[in-house]
Amino acid sequence: MAESTAFDVVDIIRTKRDGGELSDPEIDWVIAAYTRGDIADEQMSALAMAILLRGMTAVEIARWTAAMIASGERLDLSSVPRPTVDKHSTGGVGDKITLPLAPLVAACGAAVPQLSGRGLGHTGGTLDKLESIPGWRAALSNEEFLAQLSTVGAVVCAAGDQLAPADRKLYALRDVTGTVESIPLIASSIMSKKIAEGSSALVLDVKVGTGAFMKSEADARELARTMVELGAAHGVQTVALLTGMSTPLGLTAGNALEVRESLEVLAGGGPSDVVELTLALAREMLTCAGLTDIDPADALRDGRAMDAWRAMIAAQGGDPAATLPVARETHVVTAPATGVLSRLDALAVGVAAWRLGAGRARKEDPVSAGAGIVLHAKPGDEVRAGEPLLELHADDPARFERALEALHGGYEVGATPTLAPLVIDRIA
Amino acid sequence: MAESTAFDVVDIIRTKRDGGELSDPEIDWVIAAYTRGDIADEQMSALAMAILLRGMTAVEIARWTAAMIASGERLDLSSVPRPTVDKHSTGGVGDKITLPLAPLVAACGAAVPQLSGRGLGHTGGTLDKLESIPGWRAALSNEEFLAQLSTVGAVVCAAGDQLAPADRKLYALRDVTGTVESIPLIASSIMSKKIAEGSSALVLDVKVGTGAFMKSEADARELARTMVELGAAHGVQTVALLTGMSTPLGLTAGNALEVRESLEVLAGGGPSDVVELTLALAREMLTCAGLTDIDPADALRDGRAMDAWRAMIAAQGGDPAATLPVARETHVVTAPATGVLSRLDALAVGVAAWRLGAGRARKEDPVSAGAGIVLHAKPGDEVRAGEPLLELHADDPARFERALEALHGGYEVGATPTLAPLVIDRIA
Repeated sequence: MAESTAFDVVDIIRTKRDGGELSDPEIDWVIAAYTRGDIADEQMSALAMAILLRGMTAVEIARWTAAMIASGERLDLSSVPRPTVDKHSTGGVGDKITLPLAPLVAACGAAVPQLSGRGLGHTGGTLDKLESIPGWRAALSNEEFLAQLSTVGAVVCAAGDQLAPADRKLYALRDVTGTVESIPLIASSIMSKKIAEGSSALVLDVKVGTGAFMKSEADARELARTMVELGAAHGVQTVALLTGMSTPLGLTAGNALEVRESLEVLAGGGPSDVVELTLALAREMLTCAGLTDIDPADALRDGRAMDAWRAMIAAQGGDPAATLPVARETHVVTAPATGVLSRLDALAVGVAAWRLGAGRARKEDPVSAGAGIVLHAKPGDEVRAGEPLLELHADDPARFERALEALHGGYEVGATPTLAPLVIDRIA
Repeated sequence: MAESTAFDVVDIIRTKRDGGELSDPEIDWVIAAYTRGDIADEQMSALAMAILLRGMTAVEIARWTAAMIASGERLDLSSVPRPTVDKHSTGGVGDKITLPLAPLVAACGAAVPQLSGRGLGHTGGTLDKLESIPGWRAALSNEEFLAQLSTVGAVVCAAGDQLAPADRKLYALRDVTGTVESIPLIASSIMSKKIAEGSSALVLDVKVGTGAFMKSEADARELARTMVELGAAHGVQTVALLTGMSTPLGLTAGNALEVRESLEVLAGGGPSDVVELTLALAREMLTCAGLTDIDPADALRDGRAMDAWRAMIAAQGGDPAATLPVARETHVVTAPATGVLSRLDALAVGVAAWRLGAGRARKEDPVSAGAGIVLHAKPGDEVRAGEPLLELHADDPARFERALEALHGGYEVGATPTLAPLVIDRIA
């Protein structure tokens, strides 16, 4: 029984714990009080666990997201003289799509205002990848951000502290309390940041498969639908593609390795799955931006996308012509038999790349720019016993052993696999 | 994926969150790591919420309890030249039973080593009640505790920091995170302290009803059974009585008021329900202690129990002959109609007494010795419109209003009620 006139956080926790619905004022108060430190971390984590296990209604999710947006500022992109549209991926292995996609869409006439994060766990972070380019910096002021968006048309930079600070605090808490895997909490976390970013439209790449946070298609669909609804409720035109993440995207996982592969795509080449997904997302973004008569494949072919990439990198201090870092050591994994590669597990490759130094275990850890994995075959490709299947890259050869452990059981040579389509569905 | 060789607390939280069973080494590690501060409060509260919502198996509860006992010392009472037996109540309104019971059982030849707590919320704490006696002190050294137990045969004092420190820390955390109402966590909390106390036998008074933590008989039975099994597993002979707590015990709720009523019982008088429960629990305790040929009713009648009380109070610095504190102000609530009191709700009276100053909202709050409520009728008694029904006692008259609010709807004059038996069942 609360003796205070404000809300009692224990009452609120108990309501959710017992399967009840939180009211709008309760949610507003929880988010504001947690942001200013009046609700302790141990109280918020208990509430997060109750939410994870009891769920939230659509009304609760919408309010929770609105309250997180209201905990900080919402950027105003009205001065940008192009239609704004961003893309967000729920995270996968070898997912470098933002790198070719942002300059490609900019080259086609839209503006891409991407405030991004760093990798944690087995999925890579876009900022970590770009930071392998000598001189490139992730931190921009609001003024620099708006100027680059207006001139170049594409910015990928770190989100400032003013953007959804409640989410920043809650995300760090969920990460250490086993409360990440909640669709309402994931959806509100992503969408609060993306809506606060100020973009008029948003295309979501919701990954499903072993290397994704969503292992089942049903969960991925629910997450996609929840986010599309949240976007619409806040006036952001939102479309989601459901895409496969059971095997890595492209032939590389690792920071500089993925930049190199992205450059191949921007030069008109690159692995077919990376090109396919880049173009599919670009088409969705251009449609959202009202630029429906433009084929992004042309901009890849004729060099305009590469020009936009160079401008985007240079605007943030990077040298687009600089040599990319290479890891000091390599270790080759050969195919165990001759036949068809029937399976190459995204999670196994992601964890192995992480252990090689491409990712971080803790937020404060550094990453190795050169570390990662190069694939010599993808599921469905023929392989020959004793020939290279995977190439591990690391600065410290001591890292190979634990990376190889992660890969153990992660690939198979056998029957020709039935390959699922990369783009599974579109949810709007 | 943990990068450490010890257990990863996030993995453990996720296991329980997803409905899995924790292993013995995982539980041992969780309790030890939390006690030494290697698991953060926000992680433990998330785990506690997962336990509350997912439950624990009997094997998990047993190990959790054992680990909490192992977090501190287990007292050695082998030097005490009497059979040792303690009693624990899960908490109720007007529950002063320990006060007459401990000296009564000591007077019959057993030793009662009761390490007790303070009240929090609407249920009173035994130490708070005894502290209304001028001079009496709750803190004893282990040597004082053992000496008093051997000579007087009854000690009620504060539990030291060395007794189940994991429980102490976890209980405080659960209190502020909405994770109190879990049968596995309640059972392991009570039993870890009681087993560590070193008593050979234990009689539990598991309360059920509006004024108890367990509102349903099914929950109370499950809690009783769980605790009886935990006691047996640790070599402590344990019996539980399931007793009603829908209306207050006796005619008083409040610290000095309850001491005064206990003295009436020790003098051979007192309210019939308090006498009945005191004797029922005393008989169980004496049976556990092997003293089956002694009728405790004799010791109430012939003054031996009162002698033991005086010795017990004096041994801890209290003056058994001192005048007890009285609140400065009283307020009388009269019966709204003539008829039979059909209901007098324990929770309403408990919350009202608490608001009058008898209890505390926060651990660090003081309590008022004189504050509380005197009942002029119990359910089944005849009342007359306009005559006193309840007497509220407080030091500050400003407290009456909120106490009256708590009492609103808490009593009814109407049809003769069907009174349930006080002792509902015995579980051994």
